[in-house]
Amino acid sequence: MRCITLTTDFGTRDWFVGTMKGVILSLAPNARIVDLTHEIAPGDVQAGAYALAAAYAFFPRHTIHVAVVDPGVGTSRRAIAVQTSNYFFVGPDNGLFSRVLTTEKVIAIHQLKNERYFLNRVSATFHGRDVFAPVAAHLSQGAEIGKVGPLLDDYVRLKSAAPKMRHGAISGEVQYVDRFGNAITNIPAAALARVGAAAKVFLNNKPVCRIGPAYQSVPENRPVAVVGSTGFLELAINGASAAQAFGLKPGTRIELRTTVRRKGPLTRGD
Amino acid sequence: MRCITLTTDFGTRDWFVGTMKGVILSLAPNARIVDLTHEIAPGDVQAGAYALAAAYAFFPRHTIHVAVVDPGVGTSRRAIAVQTSNYFFVGPDNGLFSRVLTTEKVIAIHQLKNERYFLNRVSATFHGRDVFAPVAAHLSQGAEIGKVGPLLDDYVRLKSAAPKMRHGAISGEVQYVDRFGNAITNIPAAALARVGAAAKVFLNNKPVCRIGPAYQSVPENRPVAVVGSTGFLELAINGASAAQAFGLKPGTRIELRTTVRRKGPLTRGD
Amino acid sequence: MRCITLTTDFGTRDWFVGTMKGVILSLAPNARIVDLTHEIAPGDVQAGAYALAAAYAFFPRHTIHVAVVDPGVGTSRRAIAVQTSNYFFVGPDNGLFSRVLTTEKVIAIHQLKNERYFLNRVSATFHGRDVFAPVAAHLSQGAEIGKVGPLLDDYVRLKSAAPKMRHGAISGEVQYVDRFGNAITNIPAAALARVGAAAKVFLNNKPVCRIGPAYQSVPENRPVAVVGSTGFLELAINGASAAQAFGLKPGTRIELRTTVRRKGPLTRGD
Repeated sequence: MRCITLTTDFGTRDWFVGTMKGVILSLAPNARIVDLTHEIAPGDVQAGAYALAAAYAFFPRHTIHVAVVDPGVGTSRRAIAVQTSNYFFVGPDNGLFSRVLTTEKVIAIHQLKNERYFLNRVSATFHGRDVFAPVAAHLSQGAEIGKVGPLLDDYVRLKSAAPKMRHGAISGEVQYVDRFGNAITNIPAAALARVGAAAKVFLNNKPVCRIGPAYQSVPENRPVAVVGSTGFLELAINGASAAQAFGLKPGTRIELRTTVRRKGPLTRGD
Repeated sequence: MRCITLTTDFGTRDWFVGTMKGVILSLAPNARIVDLTHEIAPGDVQAGAYALAAAYAFFPRHTIHVAVVDPGVGTSRRAIAVQTSNYFFVGPDNGLFSRVLTTEKVIAIHQLKNERYFLNRVSATFHGRDVFAPVAAHLSQGAEIGKVGPLLDDYVRLKSAAPKMRHGAISGEVQYVDRFGNAITNIPAAALARVGAAAKVFLNNKPVCRIGPAYQSVPENRPVAVVGSTGFLELAINGASAAQAFGLKPGTRIELRTTVRRKGPLTRGD
Repeated sequence: MRCITLTTDFGTRDWFVGTMKGVILSLAPNARIVDLTHEIAPGDVQAGAYALAAAYAFFPRHTIHVAVVDPGVGTSRRAIAVQTSNYFFVGPDNGLFSRVLTTEKVIAIHQLKNERYFLNRVSATFHGRDVFAPVAAHLSQGAEIGKVGPLLDDYVRLKSAAPKMRHGAISGEVQYVDRFGNAITNIPAAALARVGAAAKVFLNNKPVCRIGPAYQSVPENRPVAVVGSTGFLELAINGASAAQAFGLKPGTRIELRTTVRRKGPLTRGD
């Protein structure tokens, strides 16, 4: 009984996701199917890659992660299955797996070519149902990854921005905005030692807040930077949306600067 | 271990769907429950019937499809269970099953009358929980459909529009708009031979686009008609919503007309 | 094979809920996980408590209900596991369980303190993943509740408003507005005998409608009060949103007054 996760931009208002599950259960009646999310913005491969990277490692070993954010469906873009030392990944080769594959040890990448592992009729528009779901189901049943098609050397990678460190400052950017309006940056917790616990967060060269231990470590409606659950600094507002208040979105620059903490307590406008 | 699918207009912001699952699992602890969709617009029986018809056949044989788009709950509208050669269907008799039952071979239709298969107390407003979920659970456990209530001769049918073919043209209409804004018509792929691969799509007598093999077979933000995953022609825009751009909704007329393909490549405004 | 339900304000557009499921399945591969809802408004503990109370009793005995509406995550707010005679409840001690625990017989309340039952690293922002999911998984595997941490005497309770009865009238308030715009009040069905079947519903001292047996017991777009599926009176409009039409939200006052039913049929404006 293996887990299969689904990450798509299909939304849940149509029958797309349910149909993928029907296909999987027809081939692998005991598969445990878990929705990661289906609310990736249509065609937003970057967000899909981010969501997958944030979640995949919390699943049981040998879980098969299917991801379908696939604006190129029906074109010549490749479809792949990847085996790493811990997991399988199945989906279009458009960068969707490039974040996870930088942290996982890749064992093999295969192009999906063997139609024996697809549905009988493959539509031009719904490879989630016709290709990715059945391939995942077959892998969950123990099919060898080598059977799905030829070995590939590489996969499509998305550009990713590393934060820049200089003396007393870290310059990063927003990677993802979550449902609460928290803006997750590319600044890892480990980097914070460089600027110290008293560092201030700057947006457009204006100080915004300090780093705190929890969303509610500041008064309501006040901003705070917190090391979030993915291990990266995120900018939040206690009880409100930082993204909305500050106009944050993926790519927005955010800076941390060392300050000497004053003696007195923090005051508003600090 | 049988599959039970759920298709409703309950949304997911309240506890309605979860509660139906609790009822099912109380009676059939091993049932595999799959959400088809719960985002059918409130009371939109046509859309529910469409979603169900698009998805039901991808599930394992003997799956029990429960559908609850039920504005008449608590009135004298009938509730039914239908057995076909492959599946079961459970829900209100208001047309919700009329699309699937035109393609499935009907074995028996029974009215839900036997209160032994309902929850002890049946509310006036939530037969999804009190009637349809427990009936589906009992069927999944092997209860005979004849036990749920008297045999019926017929079921409520929705009107459905067939496309009109005339020499060199097909006149159809939009049946469903999906999450991406793709407008699925009632023109089946098989009909396209009548107008040829070079046919143009017309809206309000204005040419809009041609038929292509994939959404991305045209440049970004350009329209294209594609044979979609349900086997019907759909009008799309690469990377955007055709429904929004053209004001398409169920019932909007759409026409295909034969053209003689010119020699040169297609140009913008074509 | 035990059920675990999830009720959160996490939404479904990020990976939060899926990740909790990954954690649960890593520890309890056979757990049956059911989503109650993830669309509780961010931080709305009252709505979370309401949803949980409306649904929990429809699940199999020994189900573990996990609820995470947790604006105080990372602060000193307590986390608890509660055993009642029928169920388990796991989540923050902020009132989320105060509705269910007034109807369930409480056997023991324990504070979550034993890190052996948490993930190895507990983040400051996502105890759903790091604390509540693993504790629920361990309980579903038979771990004794006493192991998770020290026994507590009490739990945080939310204020709740009881309806006021006086001769010939009941004064209540809206508790919850559902996806259809039905406004569920705190007036139980049993109280209706006090005012009689002919009672009128008043908002701001203006008569609005009478009590009916079903949403469709009035013409389309007309209001009606119905005893809903939770056993409380709700104000609805046939085919539309009563909440929108009348500006109803939790806390809005609603009154029932005895009337002598006139002989003739009800007329519009009644």
